[in-house]
Amino acid sequence: MLIPTTKEAPSDATLISHKLLVRAGFIQSSGGSGLYNLLPLGKIVLDRVRAVIKEELDRAGCQEVHLPIVTPISLWDETGRSNKFGDELLRFRDRHKNQFVLSPTNEEAMVNLVRQSLKSYKQLPINVYQINWKFRDEIRPRFGLMRAREFLMKDAYSFHSSREDMVREFELMEETYKRIFRRLGLDFRVVEADSGAIGGSGSKEFMILADSGEDTIMVCESCEFGANVEVLSEENSTCPECGSNLKRTKGIEVGHIFQLGTIYSKPMRAEFLNQNQKLEPFIMGTYGIGVSRIIPATIEQNHDEAGCIWTDETAPFRVDIIVAKPKDGRQMEVAEEIYSGLREAGVSVILDDRADKRYGFGVKIKDFELIGFNYAIVVGKDIESGKVELIRRDGLKREKIEIADILERVR
Amino acid sequence: MLIPTTKEAPSDATLISHKLLVRAGFIQSSGGSGLYNLLPLGKIVLDRVRAVIKEELDRAGCQEVHLPIVTPISLWDETGRSNKFGDELLRFRDRHKNQFVLSPTNEEAMVNLVRQSLKSYKQLPINVYQINWKFRDEIRPRFGLMRAREFLMKDAYSFHSSREDMVREFELMEETYKRIFRRLGLDFRVVEADSGAIGGSGSKEFMILADSGEDTIMVCESCEFGANVEVLSEENSTCPECGSNLKRTKGIEVGHIFQLGTIYSKPMRAEFLNQNQKLEPFIMGTYGIGVSRIIPATIEQNHDEAGCIWTDETAPFRVDIIVAKPKDGRQMEVAEEIYSGLREAGVSVILDDRADKRYGFGVKIKDFELIGFNYAIVVGKDIESGKVELIRRDGLKREKIEIADILERVR
Repeated sequence: MLIPTTKEAPSDATLISHKLLVRAGFIQSSGGSGLYNLLPLGKIVLDRVRAVIKEELDRAGCQEVHLPIVTPISLWDETGRSNKFGDELLRFRDRHKNQFVLSPTNEEAMVNLVRQSLKSYKQLPINVYQINWKFRDEIRPRFGLMRAREFLMKDAYSFHSSREDMVREFELMEETYKRIFRRLGLDFRVVEADSGAIGGSGSKEFMILADSGEDTIMVCESCEFGANVEVLSEENSTCPECGSNLKRTKGIEVGHIFQLGTIYSKPMRAEFLNQNQKLEPFIMGTYGIGVSRIIPATIEQNHDEAGCIWTDETAPFRVDIIVAKPKDGRQMEVAEEIYSGLREAGVSVILDDRADKRYGFGVKIKDFELIGFNYAIVVGKDIESGKVELIRRDGLKREKIEIADILERVR
Repeated sequence: MLIPTTKEAPSDATLISHKLLVRAGFIQSSGGSGLYNLLPLGKIVLDRVRAVIKEELDRAGCQEVHLPIVTPISLWDETGRSNKFGDELLRFRDRHKNQFVLSPTNEEAMVNLVRQSLKSYKQLPINVYQINWKFRDEIRPRFGLMRAREFLMKDAYSFHSSREDMVREFELMEETYKRIFRRLGLDFRVVEADSGAIGGSGSKEFMILADSGEDTIMVCESCEFGANVEVLSEENSTCPECGSNLKRTKGIEVGHIFQLGTIYSKPMRAEFLNQNQKLEPFIMGTYGIGVSRIIPATIEQNHDEAGCIWTDETAPFRVDIIVAKPKDGRQMEVAEEIYSGLREAGVSVILDDRADKRYGFGVKIKDFELIGFNYAIVVGKDIESGKVELIRRDGLKREKIEIADILERVR
């Protein structure tokens, strides 16, 4: 497996997640600023995160579609965003001189999809989403995947015949997002937010707590309340919900949900026939998750001096089997038995059987700590007494366990 | 579920697959020429095809990575393809005036990934692939997904220390591709091909047989031999392998495998240290599959007057339960029991319970035939005698069966 670990961090890397993800062989520069190749381990982590998001959205009744990344600028002209959006919107012409954008977000394209597809209040509500690569021409892309120019985003859009129904869906999405981030094992807060460039009113952000976060948030010491500092006056130091103290902390934005209303549907004449056979603009909500950004955010929150510490749902493999001496036939045999047993039991597992003299035992342990699989199982001379060493990555606690107990311990 | 079926085909559609995929609500125009939105059913079919491809490639030892679609033109300058590739290569500049291409293929980017990641013959061979959207600025995009400007492609690249090992991998990929297309239930031929613009020598194409195919191929009446007509002289009417007659037929290219040699690695100085510690360029192979193209190709091969006929592995749902009178409480109850029972047994199933008067029984049957699920189960008045009607889409054979036998019949 292609896992090119290295001691060298990129010279431009300042964030620990950027350094560790490159050093541990998850990502590498593609040669363009702010553009990254995902290596096999990075692709596995991304697929795992994506699968959790899809599962929870589908369970909540959302429907997945796919839009091209190349979008006719004529759609953006309908809302006037082609002028309002600055240089982050990459524009280009095709061979026939028609103008397009590389989509950084897809409100117009999704409104267009829905206005072409349904007409009646009877077909509402509907919540359609895609998980697709987007492009934002950042002036100074840095921080690795955290602020890459090409990034994977889940963008969902809901369409309703009444404001109340849109608010119901907004609340359902808030609960769905909480399920997603809880399943991913992340420490997060939902905060009241400013609605920013996308417009609309009523919006909440999902923040992964990390000291390196770009956003400053105020969180209540007693209840779940939190708010982006932008929406609270600085003097406001007590919780508006329970009166307890608010404390200042840092977060990384990984999700954002908005109540949009009709600000896109009106200019785009995206309308449905209501119960009185009158045309009305769709009432909309929009719900984003920065899918590729969850990878560095997870590491900003979960790492130590030695490397990455993935959560159960984000780890590229749950177990790393380290063979102390791969040239020892008996050790290899036991390692392969453990490997097959775990695979059969549905545990994701990788076998580090590198035998070249450059990859001694110490290198394998260092790679385990740097990459951050949930557990290592060291197959060494203890096998004579039926034992292996089990190391839990989070905390690096080591203990000798019976081979027969492995599955129970790592499951 | 958003399935906007319609009687109207797009006015520019000439291919039957283009007409049917739009009419059955799988795809729709995104507003840009040659750019298509995948609606929920289209996304499901694409995901199913993609999953089969990934499973077989992973089984064969390939490793999935992900490259950005935006590629620095500097990589294409290294091989000189930035000049050789015509207007189909979409070029643009970012806000800093740096030049990029929207990748139509990724030889350079993948060679760059590998030369940055490994150095020694001991780390070879390796076969890395991605399944990602690509862009080709077709002068006259038409034929729907068959020749879209933005399309999903699986592109794999293998790296070896010897020509023999590359040929071994080429043969493994030929077998892997055969497994993939067999699993997808498609009637296909592997044909000797011209190596075209990508260069190199030794190449085979995978053709889905269909009267509307753009490629003319000669296939042997007795053995497996086939060749693109471009590589055979017109007079050549006997099989070079067994001497039987060759007959002319049409195919749609959905896969292509090449023996590349060093034509990319040499100019890009992508080298490894051989056993004598000397630098040598990687010896390469490349292997493509037109993932999104498989969708229309499947329909070109499998349709009738009434609509699409998906194969077992490509159908968006295996079973469509049609409730004749959704307002009949007993019918709905039985339909929902069948629905739950099939879901629990792992059979993908959709329940057509549309109750609006516009959606009478005839409309539901027509939609079933147009969309092309593998089976319909009609829940109507026969439930009084414990029966439903089973319709197999391929052939439209109808029969009354016991409710208790449904699972056995549709599994």
